[in-house]
Amino acid sequence: MSKPLRFKKKKHYALPEPGTTPGFVYIDGNSLTPKINLYSFSADTFEVVQLQSLRDITSKTKNKDLFYWVEIKGLNSSELFNVFSDELNIHKLVLEDITRTYHRPKFEEYDGYNFAISRMLRLGEDSALENLQVSFIQTKNVLYTFQETYEDCLDAVRSRLKEGKGNIRIGGTGYLMYALMDMIVDSYFSVLNQWSEDMDEIEDRLLSRPDKSVMYETQLVKRNLIAMRRVVWPERDKMNDILRTDSDLISEQTKMFIKDAYDHCVQLMDMVESMKEIASSNIDMYLSIISNRMNEIMKVLTIISSIFIPLTFIAGIYGMNFSKQDPVTGKVMPDNMPELYQEHGYEYTLLVMAFIALVQIIFFWRKGWFK
Amino acid sequence: MSKPLRFKKKKHYALPEPGTTPGFVYIDGNSLTPKINLYSFSADTFEVVQLQSLRDITSKTKNKDLFYWVEIKGLNSSELFNVFSDELNIHKLVLEDITRTYHRPKFEEYDGYNFAISRMLRLGEDSALENLQVSFIQTKNVLYTFQETYEDCLDAVRSRLKEGKGNIRIGGTGYLMYALMDMIVDSYFSVLNQWSEDMDEIEDRLLSRPDKSVMYETQLVKRNLIAMRRVVWPERDKMNDILRTDSDLISEQTKMFIKDAYDHCVQLMDMVESMKEIASSNIDMYLSIISNRMNEIMKVLTIISSIFIPLTFIAGIYGMNFSKQDPVTGKVMPDNMPELYQEHGYEYTLLVMAFIALVQIIFFWRKGWFK
Amino acid sequence: MSKPLRFKKKKHYALPEPGTTPGFVYIDGNSLTPKINLYSFSADTFEVVQLQSLRDITSKTKNKDLFYWVEIKGLNSSELFNVFSDELNIHKLVLEDITRTYHRPKFEEYDGYNFAISRMLRLGEDSALENLQVSFIQTKNVLYTFQETYEDCLDAVRSRLKEGKGNIRIGGTGYLMYALMDMIVDSYFSVLNQWSEDMDEIEDRLLSRPDKSVMYETQLVKRNLIAMRRVVWPERDKMNDILRTDSDLISEQTKMFIKDAYDHCVQLMDMVESMKEIASSNIDMYLSIISNRMNEIMKVLTIISSIFIPLTFIAGIYGMNFSKQDPVTGKVMPDNMPELYQEHGYEYTLLVMAFIALVQIIFFWRKGWFK
Amino acid sequence: MSKPLRFKKKKHYALPEPGTTPGFVYIDGNSLTPKINLYSFSADTFEVVQLQSLRDITSKTKNKDLFYWVEIKGLNSSELFNVFSDELNIHKLVLEDITRTYHRPKFEEYDGYNFAISRMLRLGEDSALENLQVSFIQTKNVLYTFQETYEDCLDAVRSRLKEGKGNIRIGGTGYLMYALMDMIVDSYFSVLNQWSEDMDEIEDRLLSRPDKSVMYETQLVKRNLIAMRRVVWPERDKMNDILRTDSDLISEQTKMFIKDAYDHCVQLMDMVESMKEIASSNIDMYLSIISNRMNEIMKVLTIISSIFIPLTFIAGIYGMNFSKQDPVTGKVMPDNMPELYQEHGYEYTLLVMAFIALVQIIFFWRKGWFK
Amino acid sequence: MSKPLRFKKKKHYALPEPGTTPGFVYIDGNSLTPKINLYSFSADTFEVVQLQSLRDITSKTKNKDLFYWVEIKGLNSSELFNVFSDELNIHKLVLEDITRTYHRPKFEEYDGYNFAISRMLRLGEDSALENLQVSFIQTKNVLYTFQETYEDCLDAVRSRLKEGKGNIRIGGTGYLMYALMDMIVDSYFSVLNQWSEDMDEIEDRLLSRPDKSVMYETQLVKRNLIAMRRVVWPERDKMNDILRTDSDLISEQTKMFIKDAYDHCVQLMDMVESMKEIASSNIDMYLSIISNRMNEIMKVLTIISSIFIPLTFIAGIYGMNFSKQDPVTGKVMPDNMPELYQEHGYEYTLLVMAFIALVQIIFFWRKGWFK
Ligand SMILES: [Mg+2]
Ligand SMILES: [Mg+2]
Ligand SMILES: [Mg+2]
Ligand SMILES: [Mg+2]
Ligand SMILES: [Mg+2]
Ligand SMILES: [Mg+2]
Ligand SMILES: [Mg+2]
Ligand SMILES: [Mg+2]
Ligand SMILES: [Mg+2]
Ligand SMILES: [Mg+2]
Ligand SMILES: [Mg+2]
Ligand SMILES: [Mg+2]
Ligand SMILES: [Mg+2]
Ligand SMILES: [Mg+2]
Ligand SMILES: [Mg+2]
Ligand SMILES: [Mg+2]
Ligand SMILES: [Mg+2]
Ligand SMILES: [Mg+2]
Ligand SMILES: [Mg+2]
Ligand SMILES: [Mg+2]
Ligand SMILES: [Mg+2]
Ligand SMILES: [Mg+2]
Ligand SMILES: [Mg+2]
Ligand SMILES: [Mg+2]
Ligand SMILES: [Mg+2]
Ligand SMILES: [Mg+2]
Ligand SMILES: [Mg+2]
Ligand SMILES: [Mg+2]
Ligand SMILES: [Mg+2]
Ligand SMILES: [Mg+2]
Ligand SMILES: [Mg+2]
Repeated sequence: MSKPLRFKKKKHYALPEPGTTPGFVYIDGNSLTPKINLYSFSADTFEVVQLQSLRDITSKTKNKDLFYWVEIKGLNSSELFNVFSDELNIHKLVLEDITRTYHRPKFEEYDGYNFAISRMLRLGEDSALENLQVSFIQTKNVLYTFQETYEDCLDAVRSRLKEGKGNIRIGGTGYLMYALMDMIVDSYFSVLNQWSEDMDEIEDRLLSRPDKSVMYETQLVKRNLIAMRRVVWPERDKMNDILRTDSDLISEQTKMFIKDAYDHCVQLMDMVESMKEIASSNIDMYLSIISNRMNEIMKVLTIISSIFIPLTFIAGIYGMNFSKQDPVTGKVMPDNMPELYQEHGYEYTLLVMAFIALVQIIFFWRKGWFK
Repeated sequence: MSKPLRFKKKKHYALPEPGTTPGFVYIDGNSLTPKINLYSFSADTFEVVQLQSLRDITSKTKNKDLFYWVEIKGLNSSELFNVFSDELNIHKLVLEDITRTYHRPKFEEYDGYNFAISRMLRLGEDSALENLQVSFIQTKNVLYTFQETYEDCLDAVRSRLKEGKGNIRIGGTGYLMYALMDMIVDSYFSVLNQWSEDMDEIEDRLLSRPDKSVMYETQLVKRNLIAMRRVVWPERDKMNDILRTDSDLISEQTKMFIKDAYDHCVQLMDMVESMKEIASSNIDMYLSIISNRMNEIMKVLTIISSIFIPLTFIAGIYGMNFSKQDPVTGKVMPDNMPELYQEHGYEYTLLVMAFIALVQIIFFWRKGWFK
Repeated sequence: MSKPLRFKKKKHYALPEPGTTPGFVYIDGNSLTPKINLYSFSADTFEVVQLQSLRDITSKTKNKDLFYWVEIKGLNSSELFNVFSDELNIHKLVLEDITRTYHRPKFEEYDGYNFAISRMLRLGEDSALENLQVSFIQTKNVLYTFQETYEDCLDAVRSRLKEGKGNIRIGGTGYLMYALMDMIVDSYFSVLNQWSEDMDEIEDRLLSRPDKSVMYETQLVKRNLIAMRRVVWPERDKMNDILRTDSDLISEQTKMFIKDAYDHCVQLMDMVESMKEIASSNIDMYLSIISNRMNEIMKVLTIISSIFIPLTFIAGIYGMNFSKQDPVTGKVMPDNMPELYQEHGYEYTLLVMAFIALVQIIFFWRKGWFK
Repeated sequence: MSKPLRFKKKKHYALPEPGTTPGFVYIDGNSLTPKINLYSFSADTFEVVQLQSLRDITSKTKNKDLFYWVEIKGLNSSELFNVFSDELNIHKLVLEDITRTYHRPKFEEYDGYNFAISRMLRLGEDSALENLQVSFIQTKNVLYTFQETYEDCLDAVRSRLKEGKGNIRIGGTGYLMYALMDMIVDSYFSVLNQWSEDMDEIEDRLLSRPDKSVMYETQLVKRNLIAMRRVVWPERDKMNDILRTDSDLISEQTKMFIKDAYDHCVQLMDMVESMKEIASSNIDMYLSIISNRMNEIMKVLTIISSIFIPLTFIAGIYGMNFSKQDPVTGKVMPDNMPELYQEHGYEYTLLVMAFIALVQIIFFWRKGWFK
Repeated sequence: MSKPLRFKKKKHYALPEPGTTPGFVYIDGNSLTPKINLYSFSADTFEVVQLQSLRDITSKTKNKDLFYWVEIKGLNSSELFNVFSDELNIHKLVLEDITRTYHRPKFEEYDGYNFAISRMLRLGEDSALENLQVSFIQTKNVLYTFQETYEDCLDAVRSRLKEGKGNIRIGGTGYLMYALMDMIVDSYFSVLNQWSEDMDEIEDRLLSRPDKSVMYETQLVKRNLIAMRRVVWPERDKMNDILRTDSDLISEQTKMFIKDAYDHCVQLMDMVESMKEIASSNIDMYLSIISNRMNEIMKVLTIISSIFIPLTFIAGIYGMNFSKQDPVTGKVMPDNMPELYQEHGYEYTLLVMAFIALVQIIFFWRKGWFK
């Protein structure tokens, strides 16, 4: 981890002007052109075709014996949303939520269809967290999904659908929607696992050679955890809302699976909270390590200064030039520094110095400063 | 951001004397004279006139095929409120709440009308947060709004009304009230976005050249966030109260839009809480940076002092004037500092000094103090 | 604010012996002798008389066309409470609560009467917070109030009663009780306003010339806020209990006013919590200012020591007395400090010293220590 | 308060082996031998006898006109518990709870009897908190109580029972149980009061002469408060459970008294939380005082070092021995330290030193370091 | 406790690929091969046999007069789980939960059987916390348990079953499941007790000779407490779910025992929270001890430096070589350091030094720095 010491700035959303008509479908000019796939399937059949537009989608999905998944990747087309509002009678507030891609996960029932939002989390380059919206419109026979990017984490569901594994072809649009949501929640575990490994690595550094980066990187993980918590809490609430709905578009069998996804959300919340507590505990340890280090530095300074400063003073005393005899007048002043003219004066002085140093060393030893 | 290091003091409300009659309409002498606009509209028609007073307002709004919006800007007129209490039978506690402009957002049902309060937040000069009250009285055909200032953030709604976009002319007073409230909530996002950009700028400074202003400005943002939270929490509760009301002045269609505004409030709370956590995390980082810097300063001091103080002591030793021969009596004392009279004594001494310095440098190197 | 650095000690209540009979009326010998006023009023009439005792109170309040307010100030009379228990059949636990004046605000319904407690907060000398109990017994026609002191904050209600303003004479005992409680809650705003001004003043000092008193006084305000929160939370619950009661002693019209007082309590809680957060933020800023100041002090010490200690060492070197010639034997030792005997040796040494100082100054400059 | 710096270790309960049969009555060999008193009483009669064992207790308590209190102090007898399980049909889980004396307060209804636990708190030697269990089995006519020690805080109830004060003899076993529980809760106030006085004393020391013991003793009080909170919260829940029970062993009259005890628990929780906040605030103040003191120490060091170190350097300069004339060759070097040979050189040097010192003193003065 | 300074890394679960079919039974290749025991018992009979596989388990457990416990240790067999899904019709999501052994405790009702998860906590080598899953499938007559390891903490239940103590053979599969869960919860107390003793030992060190390890080990205990809290909270919820179920597989008698286990969970939560608060308080004390120690170190440095630096300066003054007479020209300069040539000059200087030192000592004494 040798990232530059810089937090990835979060995208400041290009908010539409405040006060636009509620339900105004906002087409972001920088978003991707839609690619549309139509999956038709039943227990025994499976087919995918790519559509150029959604015009006449009603006629293409009219076979009541089949289920359909209309997958829309890229939202840069107002014509697309006109089909939903004109042909399929989707409420314009729903369409607004699909195009403003920064909503919390939620589940809402409307007349004849359900609307849901999930958020796809993944680690991009530099381990920066990407947070993308996936929207669902579920009718009796057709599931529409909307996402901002072409690539995603849903390939496993597509191949299960193609191979007809498990309930995926026979559970209807409700089970398919569950399978996609569950896939998204499962991918949170991978992200958390990556962070958990990062934290282990940071922790190793904290205990072996702590430096500024420990603080910085721990805060980075903590922020990511805060971001994930903001997604997982409403995700759990969403699952709960689906569990409690009496919409006949969600079967009781599917709800058993939703309960399982709900369990996963609770588990994720547990993990996020634990990791946040551990991050905080590491920050506290880092701060105490800094304090301890300061103590150690000060001890070295104090021991050396305290021992040598008094000795230097004594040396300074006997470096003074008080004169025994006036050089001009020749007057003798026997009281001026008689020590200098005594035999063994130097040796006695050195002994006194050694004694002073010893006393101090014993004093510091007793205080435990040499440990 | 080169603000003076000073928190903007919050207005200490000129509270009316405690113990005034409950429902006493308090006219603040410093507030603005009312300007009154009467908007009359239906699906096909639209008209605005400016009124001089509200006398006979009942007769001016009696056409049951039209909806009316009576917009009152500036509250400095007791005559105005007399009309409400005498002609329109508005409860005096409602009028008190309109004139004491520091209430939390709320929604209340009364006999024949609904009463609601929103708070308009905006950044004034010096990025100081202004927090203004907008009050609503909604009857079947007429919506009365009250605000403290002439200018506001509601022009977009006025032009939608004029141009007849969306539901605004056909949704009745309930939808119009929603549109105004939604507009106000939307403007919170702009304010939050501004703070988010401020925090990014502060954070850059924190990581590149942290100084006292980082702490100060982060605390400033944190306070603003606290103030916004105080507004957004009850705003959300208000939206919820409107959703749950069985007042026939709020239609089911309007409630779908209110649900959308409720979502926005929840999103705002999410954002406020996240930003507060990030602000706290930045403060912690700032404090750890200060501690680290202190460590660095102390290391320089300790290294230099510890190396030179002992050397200076040695120099001091050989600067002493212990005499080899008494200048007066001429007595020779060979034990007094014989080193001074040895050939190469000086060079040996310099070597000893170099050796001591080297030992210390190695010691500090090993401790990692040069990193 | 030049208070002595000392927290006002809270009164340690003279608790009656644990294990006294429940419902034991505790007469504190230090409390005040009761003064009793009897207010009789109807829409058109008003009269106050001072009573010597409560004996025969039933006969004095038997006119069903009038309402009565029996105001008792000072609780030092067991005879007084005997009247309540014998003549008026008030439960002895109620009387115990009235005499033990440290109860949380509450509202309780009994057979034929309601019982409520409010707490009067006011700033005494030295801005110390006084926290006094006001108790209410409300029957159909008579309101009894009990307070510990003769002076209080209720005069405004008394004069409204005398002048017959608003509903005060026609709303019955329920409205009168509300008016008194509302008056008490209103006075909390004044107290909070005082603290808010104190905090502004402390904050100014924090940002201009912070010293120990900032910490101390902020903690003082914080404690007062904690004390107020302890009163406001149960006060809000009390208002809510009154709103939800089905006692026929509280009319629906009065409940609309109670709802207003409830709003005020919520607003107070908001303000208390915000002020507490601001106080905490100021404490954090104060601590970071101390840390910054320490950094500044250490920088001065380190710059001066680091520059001069090596120079002093060099001066010390050339202050050594290594001898070029043995004074006794006359032996010449050309290696002993030849620098001292070179032309311009002194000047070169000064240049070396200047160079060392310069290098260090550049080093510290680069580290940004001169900013 | 001159306690040794040592927290009283909490008792590590001699847990029975995990996996013993649920309902296993654990007789702690170190506990006390039971002493049993049988109180029989009615409105007019009162008698106490000491029992040797509980055999035939049914026949001794069969008079339906009397109430009985069987008081058991000391639990070291398995025979005792056999009577309860065999003769009185008490559930073995109840008996287990009575003998494992570390349960939270609770109230449970069983077939024909109620079971409750209270915890007796008291300050032992060294102000250490003792936390003892009192258990209650309440039938229509008989109340059994179980406690671990012979002495307790319940004497006041015993004497009220003997003297027949208040409801104690006429309220039945329900009221007697209430009276005992209320007595226990009342004693918490005394304990809290003691701690409150301790905290006042610590606070005085904090503000006058803070030392390590302030931190230590505040933490000690905080721990005691945590321990009390652990008891008071479930105690409140217990009172609430009794209030809501429809057991016919608890009369409505008794419930009015239970409501009073409930109020006391809420008040206790209030007090505990406030005291905890004050303790935290004192710890914060203590830490800021330490920081301030460090600042003061560093200021002294920096002022003295910064003034004298440069001066000493100058003195060191003129203490160098650069020679004006080579002692051996006699060569004159006029550039070597000419200052030494100038008239008034010494005085000018002293003036320069004084000037440097003055500049620094002014610099430090301006920084406010002398305040 | 001389552990290496290293946190035990938590196992990063080998997550199956995200997007696998929901209900996919994941067989971890590193897990243990199943050992299966079949216990058959009634009030009077008891038998254990070891099974090689679960094929035909239905025929082996068909005697309606007996209860059966099928104990499965080690989960490495997909054939095993096929039996459950094919012969016993267990929902595949249940089997997935059994094989992914990192679930929170929970209780779920299915058609004809109940499913529950407990977590076994125990201290492994180095006091590291192991956290293992035990799963239960309970039908009318058969209880299936699944655990990851061969050894566990359940032997006491096995021997009670063999010896027929208490209700264990007559309470059916519900009571047996309770007994196992209760055993597991009981073992948490042992673990907590161990940590409590660790904390006592750490605390002793904190108060006698605090070093880095105190911080580190306290954080270690805190993390373990966080991990235990993550287990105990959902365990309590699980017990509550069992209490509220109307499944006829759990009898009312068994629920009384479940209530007891619920009590234990609440008690555990209490203990965990208290211990966490104490750990935090110890960390705060440790940090204040470090700060105090720094103060002490700085005081020593400051006292010694402040006393000797000025004295050394004075010695330096009189060590200067300002000349009374030019050695070359012989010019006399009487103003250059006349002190050096005065009788008793040396003695006066020493007196001045002693005076300065005395003044400083008194100054520091007054500041209380010698205490
Ligand atoms: Mg909008
Ligand atoms: Mg929306
Ligand atoms: Mg979001
Ligand atoms: Mg899943
Ligand atoms: Mg975020
Ligand atoms: Mg902390
Ligand atoms: Mg008022
Ligand atoms: Mg507000
Ligand atoms: Mg909106
Ligand atoms: Mg504010
Ligand atoms: Mg912190
Ligand atoms: Mg009492
Ligand atoms: Mg009471
Ligand atoms: Mg109170
Ligand atoms: Mg009011
Ligand atoms: Mg208080
Ligand atoms: Mg109001
Ligand atoms: Mg803090
Ligand atoms: Mg903190
Ligand atoms: Mg057990
Ligand atoms: Mg139990
Ligand atoms: Mg307990
Ligand atoms: Mg009591
Ligand atoms: Mg405890
Ligand atoms: Mg704090
Ligand atoms: Mg899955
Ligand atoms: Mg699962
Ligand atoms: Mg878990
Ligand atoms: Mg148990
Ligand atoms: Mg964990
Ligand atoms: Mg702290």
